[in-house]
Amino acid sequence: MTASAAPLDLIRPEVDRSLRMFVERQRPLFADPQLAVLLSTAEDFLASGKRLRPAFCYWGWRAAGGGDDPALHAAAASLELLQASALIHDDVMDSSDVRRGMPAVHRKFEQMHRQAGWHGSAEQFGEGAAVLLGNLLLIWAGEMWRNSGMGPEALAAAQPVHEQMLTELMSGQYLDLLEQAQGESTLDGALRVALYKSGKYSVEQPLRLGLVLAAQAQHPWIDRLCVQYGQQVGIAFQLRDDILGVFGDPTETGKPAGDDLREGKRTILIARALSVATPAQAETVRALLGDPLLDADGVERLRSVILDTGALSACEEMIKRFLDDALHALDQAPIDESARTALAALAVAATSRRT
Amino acid sequence: MTASAAPLDLIRPEVDRSLRMFVERQRPLFADPQLAVLLSTAEDFLASGKRLRPAFCYWGWRAAGGGDDPALHAAAASLELLQASALIHDDVMDSSDVRRGMPAVHRKFEQMHRQAGWHGSAEQFGEGAAVLLGNLLLIWAGEMWRNSGMGPEALAAAQPVHEQMLTELMSGQYLDLLEQAQGESTLDGALRVALYKSGKYSVEQPLRLGLVLAAQAQHPWIDRLCVQYGQQVGIAFQLRDDILGVFGDPTETGKPAGDDLREGKRTILIARALSVATPAQAETVRALLGDPLLDADGVERLRSVILDTGALSACEEMIKRFLDDALHALDQAPIDESARTALAALAVAATSRRT
Repeated sequence: MTASAAPLDLIRPEVDRSLRMFVERQRPLFADPQLAVLLSTAEDFLASGKRLRPAFCYWGWRAAGGGDDPALHAAAASLELLQASALIHDDVMDSSDVRRGMPAVHRKFEQMHRQAGWHGSAEQFGEGAAVLLGNLLLIWAGEMWRNSGMGPEALAAAQPVHEQMLTELMSGQYLDLLEQAQGESTLDGALRVALYKSGKYSVEQPLRLGLVLAAQAQHPWIDRLCVQYGQQVGIAFQLRDDILGVFGDPTETGKPAGDDLREGKRTILIARALSVATPAQAETVRALLGDPLLDADGVERLRSVILDTGALSACEEMIKRFLDDALHALDQAPIDESARTALAALAVAATSRRT
Repeated sequence: MTASAAPLDLIRPEVDRSLRMFVERQRPLFADPQLAVLLSTAEDFLASGKRLRPAFCYWGWRAAGGGDDPALHAAAASLELLQASALIHDDVMDSSDVRRGMPAVHRKFEQMHRQAGWHGSAEQFGEGAAVLLGNLLLIWAGEMWRNSGMGPEALAAAQPVHEQMLTELMSGQYLDLLEQAQGESTLDGALRVALYKSGKYSVEQPLRLGLVLAAQAQHPWIDRLCVQYGQQVGIAFQLRDDILGVFGDPTETGKPAGDDLREGKRTILIARALSVATPAQAETVRALLGDPLLDADGVERLRSVILDTGALSACEEMIKRFLDDALHALDQAPIDESARTALAALAVAATSRRT
């Protein structure tokens, strides 16, 4: 993370503390020794993470005049529970092995089954346990949000945003599955998935939650800022994710090199490459993308197509354009000045990250 | 369902109507033609179901003096969304093919993938889509509960019960997975799973929610009734479920004959059989229970062991004893008389059902 990550660093200790306190409050329900592993696995998973969504929520709150408030820290931190749930389920759905440099949660439970020499399929046990732990975190995300200590008026104003965010997250993930299955890789399709999955869920709605909690209402200027800054930073964030999924350094991303290629992700980067590929280049993509056994040589061949078609530089250009537009919209918004500076830095950090 | 199902029949139309209204309110978020299948699949799934949990919630509310109120109908109906979510995820985790006489939801999406000739694994697509639809229903269960129209004091009093129910449901399902994996089939272990999965989630907590919503507080007598009546009816309900899973008529249960045997469910019925089995009988259970390819002959052999060990009649005895104790506790509770009659009939219906 670059120096511009300061607005993330500022909120991280508060988010971490809120999450630890929440987990502690759950402990009495996990006193049974056989249940303890659910809580400890959640705890381990929550110990890392970029805290990006809480940061957008926090700076949205500050932008609309909110001060530092432990209730807001808890409300913002609840977005990390949601993200943990989504990642754990995602890894089951994609059969991913690794997350944040560690075995994916379903693999961890699978391993537990194998080591104990239990009956039945270790893989099925691992997936079942991970689905349930993801469900727990999804439930807790709502619980932590509502019990954050925010006043009832603020919560009531933000509740429709929160509900819509959750439904859109699941719809967006379904569209993502569908795009992968349909394998059409149109630029429009990939952009739509990016808008649902990241534009809305990762940036626009966390920001809107913070703004609406502080303003206790949904003003037209809030909507304008959330759409023009939030969606564009979100899509640029997803574009960076696409690039890291293909060209990222495994020691920084915590995922194997070229993992998105092996999983056959239909990203904007791939759609862009296919839109201008020669027949031979398109054939390479068709043959290799989504091959679960793709080796280093195959990764290299796909990378070459992405470079040779100019898709990488086109995506870098798109990131720059989305970021510029977002910063312009940010300049026009009637918000607190220190929050404006922080949101500008956050947009840069989110779209220029290496992890 | 027998004639004593009247208290279920009374609430069913109200629950059905509330669910249809809720689904309609979601429709604008599913306008995209590719998303429509999520809503229609949810709708189809929700069209059937016993409405048992809403009935316990409704009669709990009436027991503590509540009158007929559309807000309570919606709050009670939200428990069907939760149950739909749990069943859809359950079928993924157990790799079940059939639910309520129809293909399980993950099989439906798998079929959609196959018919369209999409890329990648149809099975993986089906499971992913079913996990996401289950998540949507889990989210909606909370949303419908909170937006039911119940007053803020009532909701605030019931919120901790609701939260604990959700966490316990996931913990209970995890224990169920674990028991199956460990394959120990102790009576204690099976009883603990039955308590978490059904005692608490199917009866005690729905009843408690209704009582606390009406009383706007958790009184000692409420706790006594919920534990003594609720848990015992819940465990008896699970015992009936165990019996139906082995001896049920597929045309009535909507599941293939002996499905629980094929899935290797470690039920109280099985634990009881094993606790008194001869070495030869125990060997039959070890060899056949959980065999995914178990045929009609294998089902018959396992049924014989369950009959010959006296496990079936022992479980029928347990149901009768739990039911008697529950009805005795019901007699002692300071509740509305018409609700007392209804809860007695409901306990009988829940434990003597054939579907």
